[in-house]
Amino acid sequence: MKISIAQINYHIGNFEGTFEKMKFAIEEAKSAKSDIVCFSELATVGYPPRDFLEFDDFIHLSEDLIDRLCAMSDDIAIVVGAPTRNPDPKGKDLFNSAYFIAGGKVLFVQHKTLLPTYDIFDEYRYFEPAKEWGVVEYKGKKIALTICEDIWDVATDNPLYTIIPLDEMIKHNPDFIINVSASPFSYTKAAQRIDIVKANVDRYKIPMFYINHCGAQTELIFDGGSIVMSPNGVYDEMPYFENCTRHFVLEDVIAGTIAPEIQDKTKIKLIHDALVMGLKDYFSKLGFKQAVLGLSGGIDSAVTAVLAARALGSENVRVLLMPSQFSSDHSVEDARILAENLGIQYDIIPIRDMYDVFMEKLSPLFGDKPFNVTEENIQARVRGILNMAISNKFGNILLNTTNKSEMAAGYGTLYGDLCGGLSVLGDVYKTEVYELARFINKDSEVIPLNSIVKPPSAELRPNQKDSDSLPDYDILDKILYLYVEKRTDPSDIIAAGYDESLVKRVLRLVNINEFKRHQTAPVLRVSSKAFGMGRRMPIVAKYLN
Amino acid sequence: MKISIAQINYHIGNFEGTFEKMKFAIEEAKSAKSDIVCFSELATVGYPPRDFLEFDDFIHLSEDLIDRLCAMSDDIAIVVGAPTRNPDPKGKDLFNSAYFIAGGKVLFVQHKTLLPTYDIFDEYRYFEPAKEWGVVEYKGKKIALTICEDIWDVATDNPLYTIIPLDEMIKHNPDFIINVSASPFSYTKAAQRIDIVKANVDRYKIPMFYINHCGAQTELIFDGGSIVMSPNGVYDEMPYFENCTRHFVLEDVIAGTIAPEIQDKTKIKLIHDALVMGLKDYFSKLGFKQAVLGLSGGIDSAVTAVLAARALGSENVRVLLMPSQFSSDHSVEDARILAENLGIQYDIIPIRDMYDVFMEKLSPLFGDKPFNVTEENIQARVRGILNMAISNKFGNILLNTTNKSEMAAGYGTLYGDLCGGLSVLGDVYKTEVYELARFINKDSEVIPLNSIVKPPSAELRPNQKDSDSLPDYDILDKILYLYVEKRTDPSDIIAAGYDESLVKRVLRLVNINEFKRHQTAPVLRVSSKAFGMGRRMPIVAKYLN
Repeated sequence: MKISIAQINYHIGNFEGTFEKMKFAIEEAKSAKSDIVCFSELATVGYPPRDFLEFDDFIHLSEDLIDRLCAMSDDIAIVVGAPTRNPDPKGKDLFNSAYFIAGGKVLFVQHKTLLPTYDIFDEYRYFEPAKEWGVVEYKGKKIALTICEDIWDVATDNPLYTIIPLDEMIKHNPDFIINVSASPFSYTKAAQRIDIVKANVDRYKIPMFYINHCGAQTELIFDGGSIVMSPNGVYDEMPYFENCTRHFVLEDVIAGTIAPEIQDKTKIKLIHDALVMGLKDYFSKLGFKQAVLGLSGGIDSAVTAVLAARALGSENVRVLLMPSQFSSDHSVEDARILAENLGIQYDIIPIRDMYDVFMEKLSPLFGDKPFNVTEENIQARVRGILNMAISNKFGNILLNTTNKSEMAAGYGTLYGDLCGGLSVLGDVYKTEVYELARFINKDSEVIPLNSIVKPPSAELRPNQKDSDSLPDYDILDKILYLYVEKRTDPSDIIAAGYDESLVKRVLRLVNINEFKRHQTAPVLRVSSKAFGMGRRMPIVAKYLN
Repeated sequence: MKISIAQINYHIGNFEGTFEKMKFAIEEAKSAKSDIVCFSELATVGYPPRDFLEFDDFIHLSEDLIDRLCAMSDDIAIVVGAPTRNPDPKGKDLFNSAYFIAGGKVLFVQHKTLLPTYDIFDEYRYFEPAKEWGVVEYKGKKIALTICEDIWDVATDNPLYTIIPLDEMIKHNPDFIINVSASPFSYTKAAQRIDIVKANVDRYKIPMFYINHCGAQTELIFDGGSIVMSPNGVYDEMPYFENCTRHFVLEDVIAGTIAPEIQDKTKIKLIHDALVMGLKDYFSKLGFKQAVLGLSGGIDSAVTAVLAARALGSENVRVLLMPSQFSSDHSVEDARILAENLGIQYDIIPIRDMYDVFMEKLSPLFGDKPFNVTEENIQARVRGILNMAISNKFGNILLNTTNKSEMAAGYGTLYGDLCGGLSVLGDVYKTEVYELARFINKDSEVIPLNSIVKPPSAELRPNQKDSDSLPDYDILDKILYLYVEKRTDPSDIIAAGYDESLVKRVLRLVNINEFKRHQTAPVLRVSSKAFGMGRRMPIVAKYLN
């Protein structure tokens, strides 16, 4: 028996485009004489479809697509994830299902049992869990169909669910397992995925074919890396961040005779590649080609510009250099050198005249109030207007260049440097931005060394340094990681060796700035806990603030 | 037996403040010789606590509060909603529970069964559903404890859940039901709440004491209106939008001898009162007193200013009048009259000089590109900077004045008129804003009639009218209501008698502007489907756009 895995980049709600991609993969699989071709979770609609699932019309369009797949299944079986209507009036109206289609019709449907409802996942919002489990028999083989999370709750001390669906399916003696997934990237996920597939293969002693989405959907990046594993170990791991279809002979998989190509899973390389794919798909799926951003001479905008040029092409990235009276000479120079290194269009617009006229108009209202964050913010907001003017006039999407440390601490100006349609580095701590910069420069100095080695500064008042307002990033990022990613209690962070008043100050900064993050662009997610849909905090609260 | 209902305004995570409020209510109940005093759902932590529930420390603080309530329960029983840890390692780590505390200890805990996970609710994100149901016996009475949603799934054709918890509890023959709730306001909810309590009382033939939160938490407004109902009908309905404690003799409730005071539930009055409470609590719970907003002479900013003055006091609201070369003379005049009617501080800053210097700097980049939305947006963004300068310099929260029709259609400038910490009218359609204005003016002309009767215009280009870009609001709002609130399929909206190309255009506008709403302030929720946390749409998608 031969099984094909189609690792595809879907576009939510683009039923016609999805059909074309599936048709292409089905034809490839037929040419390879495969018996079964497998697509990923909710492939008909794209993942996550979110509240579009509440529209009857949307479900109809998915059902139409299933019908069209049936029509192509005369000489090949098709496994595909799609929503199913719940015939019982009780419970949620839909299931999240894996369809087994063959001989022109739907042979079998298995619904998803474990519905992730945490972090970025909202599946119980839409779906009823499965309460029945079977296997499908095809060409003499029994196959267990599982959907993503269904395989994730084995071998853990504190399982999220009270049932293990494969423990039920295994009673029917399946020959192998197919798992259709939409498992979003984080830099730790690739390793975890191998571990969890292995835990299942070890538990049930049969092979597993694990099919993942590949492509970015707004903030979520699906990294591919589909896995074929037999009880003898990993048979194949498909490429990360790349669409492709591969074909596997079941008997060879069981024999486990080949070792897979080792892919580089260095944290920073993964993050780099994920961000490039995240950028590329955000633009292409919205129908945009060109980006604009403000280049300050600092490291965040430098790294963002490089990633944008790699994702969109140098010809599609333009930058504004917008020095103020507080900008150092070398800042403009560093920005200019980077723009030239990248071969991207740049324009220089000093902001002083705009700033001065705002101050002239406002000074009667300000009276004798001293210079403070207000004046700093006016500079950042003048730059925001200029960037957005280019965006509006030429149809470029403005990229937000804020990093995760700044987003966490609220060190950024709402409607100023926080403007932008997509936050590229909002899930990358400042210390990781440095690592990215060094990774980018590994073969040649793309980013001027000066942008990397100089002390970080917003340059919004004379001789300002980030360290005037924030702890050193080395310490700040570690405290933030414990609090944001690990949800560590304040007392435990202090017990880990950090100064009590510093911890309290940092946690307070995080919590009082929830209102800023509420209004920030979607953040490309690369960690296990990004700001945005996966982290839901009250704005009005009185806890750790 | 005497039962007290404490309808209280909680502040999420403010454990000390919550204890003081509870203590006050307990003492009131003791003075009234009550046997039981009841607080609402998750009262110890405030609702919705969102991801704070993932912090062990936060749960500890709730447990400490329960201990302190135990210490006050020697001569009164206390019913209170709080999270409970799930002792089973399997399943979610918490339950959403109702505690029955008496004689210094926790006598009984009933967990919530039906976990709302739709619209603004995320309860299955945190909680495991109950699988056991009992009643608590106290002073010779058996009491069934339920938590909010637990009573909402009776007598419906398409129930969301597969179980009805009271059907289980009723087997123990309870004498009455207590329901601790956190049921957010929408203008249709008050009537629904009475209906659902009645459906339960009719089904089980025993009285129900229904205790609701009262107070706003960012976008969610909890309107109180706690209900006491016997099989003979409504015994009492407590005030809307008002904190209070009332005491009820069980035997009188059963006898059903008094008729409750009728409260005015006119849609527009409810929305008005809800918005005033929403504004007031947003400011007070964040520790702010003063608001700023831009007053254009149009109806949206006029209504927002009135609501702000009513919520915060005239002395705490200031406005900027920021005419451009495209503003009509009467606009400034209408705005000035309103400011004077309200007795609020106003300043006039014409924006032309700022606009001109931006255009001077940008024109070399724009070349011969014609005037378009770019130039309109620059005006709106200059106003955004000025408003935010007042906000930053004086500590006023900027109010967003956008209405729901504009938010839906994307008719507003990101980082311009969409600036602000709170969207006051973002869940009020333009046609409803007119109704609000007339409601405000019912006794005297607070809002100048001219602001109400003139054709709406953004005044960002010569002789601009909203109707140049948008359908008439009468039609637009009806289509939006069907699509947003009712999730009606496009074909059904057309079948309802709306022009096909118009429907497609409106739905396309809604869908292509998801990115703007993603970056907008929290919206005070008054309808059954507001933009924000209750409506989760992909930004990058290809469906109806």
